[in-house]
Amino acid sequence: MVINLGKENSILNQFIAELRDTEVQNHSMLFRKNMERVGEIFAYEISRRLAYETKEVITPLGSAEVSVLRTYPVLATILRAGLPFHQGFLNFYDKSENAFVSAYRKHHKDGSFEVQIEYVSKPDLEGRTLILIDPMLASGYSMTLACRELIGDMKPLHTHMVSILASVEGINYIKRNFSSSEVTVWVGAIDDELTAQAYIVPGLGDAGDLAFGKKL
Amino acid sequence: MVINLGKENSILNQFIAELRDTEVQNHSMLFRKNMERVGEIFAYEISRRLAYETKEVITPLGSAEVSVLRTYPVLATILRAGLPFHQGFLNFYDKSENAFVSAYRKHHKDGSFEVQIEYVSKPDLEGRTLILIDPMLASGYSMTLACRELIGDMKPLHTHMVSILASVEGINYIKRNFSSSEVTVWVGAIDDELTAQAYIVPGLGDAGDLAFGKKL
Amino acid sequence: MVINLGKENSILNQFIAELRDTEVQNHSMLFRKNMERVGEIFAYEISRRLAYETKEVITPLGSAEVSVLRTYPVLATILRAGLPFHQGFLNFYDKSENAFVSAYRKHHKDGSFEVQIEYVSKPDLEGRTLILIDPMLASGYSMTLACRELIGDMKPLHTHMVSILASVEGINYIKRNFSSSEVTVWVGAIDDELTAQAYIVPGLGDAGDLAFGKKL
Amino acid sequence: MVINLGKENSILNQFIAELRDTEVQNHSMLFRKNMERVGEIFAYEISRRLAYETKEVITPLGSAEVSVLRTYPVLATILRAGLPFHQGFLNFYDKSENAFVSAYRKHHKDGSFEVQIEYVSKPDLEGRTLILIDPMLASGYSMTLACRELIGDMKPLHTHMVSILASVEGINYIKRNFSSSEVTVWVGAIDDELTAQAYIVPGLGDAGDLAFGKKL
Repeated sequence: MVINLGKENSILNQFIAELRDTEVQNHSMLFRKNMERVGEIFAYEISRRLAYETKEVITPLGSAEVSVLRTYPVLATILRAGLPFHQGFLNFYDKSENAFVSAYRKHHKDGSFEVQIEYVSKPDLEGRTLILIDPMLASGYSMTLACRELIGDMKPLHTHMVSILASVEGINYIKRNFSSSEVTVWVGAIDDELTAQAYIVPGLGDAGDLAFGKKL
Repeated sequence: MVINLGKENSILNQFIAELRDTEVQNHSMLFRKNMERVGEIFAYEISRRLAYETKEVITPLGSAEVSVLRTYPVLATILRAGLPFHQGFLNFYDKSENAFVSAYRKHHKDGSFEVQIEYVSKPDLEGRTLILIDPMLASGYSMTLACRELIGDMKPLHTHMVSILASVEGINYIKRNFSSSEVTVWVGAIDDELTAQAYIVPGLGDAGDLAFGKKL
Repeated sequence: MVINLGKENSILNQFIAELRDTEVQNHSMLFRKNMERVGEIFAYEISRRLAYETKEVITPLGSAEVSVLRTYPVLATILRAGLPFHQGFLNFYDKSENAFVSAYRKHHKDGSFEVQIEYVSKPDLEGRTLILIDPMLASGYSMTLACRELIGDMKPLHTHMVSILASVEGINYIKRNFSSSEVTVWVGAIDDELTAQAYIVPGLGDAGDLAFGKKL
Repeated sequence: MVINLGKENSILNQFIAELRDTEVQNHSMLFRKNMERVGEIFAYEISRRLAYETKEVITPLGSAEVSVLRTYPVLATILRAGLPFHQGFLNFYDKSENAFVSAYRKHHKDGSFEVQIEYVSKPDLEGRTLILIDPMLASGYSMTLACRELIGDMKPLHTHMVSILASVEGINYIKRNFSSSEVTVWVGAIDDELTAQAYIVPGLGDAGDLAFGKKL
């Protein structure tokens, strides 16, 4: 159910190293670009699991039998941190329909928080492959809530949840809430620690702030 | 108060022509790319109004006195249609802080609607230049509401509202609601008609659907 | 020695289908973009064969042990058709040194031709991994000549020759001229036919013309 | 005949400042990206001088009279330093035909050098607008030689020579060799000094090396 693409070395690990590195983070354009590149690699790897069909195309010199995607997956992104990561998926799945969800952490005075969903924009997901994109799988609450909210009572064919970094705890939370026939989890690295404020350690910091600046 | 960049010919008009054209719209990647390119042009034109300061940089062969932005403007985008347009601004203002607002049209049974704000994420705007990005200035309600919501009781230095296409009615609505000392409106073309459903005609259709697919 | 990435379905095959398709070719920006995306996929796949080392990076919340490329490969491109394909590699290997070679077909009156090298710009290749990039492996003459010219009497660690489309004949030519310990050939599809003018059929036409326009 | 776009402040000057800055140069991806963005700004400014025509396009909601480029200019680039700068032009003039020239400095033992042209690939230039792209206008020899070589005995409508940085000496050399009815020179900054090795000071160093790495 969980596929860790960073387990075997590829340029993905270089990009993740740069995403973590405070020195590279100083250039927010590089931070966003690394998110985008990582998104492209996940998009490619997930594309191996999708269905294809053959068709005939006319080339300048003849006709060729080619293999094309049967249908494009739906790309769903959790705002705002997911946007540059989503851009990478969109670069490769340029004909996809897209969903957007905003989830935010409502903090209580005692330091605890709950995740709430506000904005939702989505296409029909019935029978579709859904790729749910959030760079950090920390507690797993946002991913779970966003997934439930998006799907509602529809039945997607399958859901791929994708995060660049995950905590052990977050992965376990997803495992408890979804079956492996419903959901595949893709990650680039798994970190051991999760702070009380649900930050992954060593992680990379706050992905939203690094991409778009601090918010009030 | 209103600057129509399309009035004098430049490649901007080529891009706007392609954005309107149903044949080019078939490739949603081209649609998004045209939004992005238009965003870059507006970003550049607006940059002429910003404040610069000189500083010394070390080159491989000496030291040069150069002119750099004193501070970067804050880029605020209305979801979801504004995202590819925002990307163009972010390409040029890569060090900017960003704000996101979701506005949606709540339709009533009689066909009328009101615009509601859900998600808001924003940095401090006190004394800052704000660029508010929405590809279509139709009724002007979303732009106005988003602007009020973002600003709250802060006092930005100045707000630039930017739309690719505007209706005469939308522009008039902004003029009635903001003074020219507060707000400058930048557009690429002004269309005469606004339908009862607040679509600009001939316009380009639904920018959000064209960029990201239809939603439920 | 020959790895055909198109053999198993992935989004790569979708991109190759679009590269071949005269209807998509009409938008030269899409043609170049498809070349670029295909370049990124090959770059990623080749990156799995490269050497990595662990290092420590400082994150905002701690320090992480990460895996990074030991050295970047050298990217060598055959002009002019290779440029958009090269861009894809450069997107992923952004710290690479680059080489450029121009090869052109000198046509004789009897219809035959020989390939000649003009412009060469290259870094030191001694002990380096070389990725030699040319979208079409037709006769195999250009690839072979460019490789000999670039390498001279240096000894690269290994050379990866990458083409989007190859002919059976071109692959055989490479096999006869290089050993599998020296060279790995990566392709996206293998077409059966090669015309007397050394065009791959069904192929995709003239990659240089499609990307940059016809030349005198 | 000479238009210095950096004379009045815009984000262009920010990009040029970063191009000069050794600290930003450390990330060659940022160096190339800055070249590309500067190329887009020049492309836009030059587009104001081109000819447009009106045509009718069908939008989803009606038909619109729009203004489009009558013909696209030809983009000619001097290898290899010109490539990222050319990419910026190509982003905006995506339907243009392209020319490539390689010019190199043949150094003599006494330290002097002459510029030689090797590779040339070009479309028909008769009656066309030509944009000749080279990031550095140092001595002016390469630009002049490349222009003569490309044009041969054809008669372009007009030639725009574009450089990010120019020396006073280089500009004077162009002025002596071309008339203002033939050629317009566009630059982003003019530096005073030119070394005996024809490097602009303070300049930005060797643009080709910074974009693509040192060569043998």
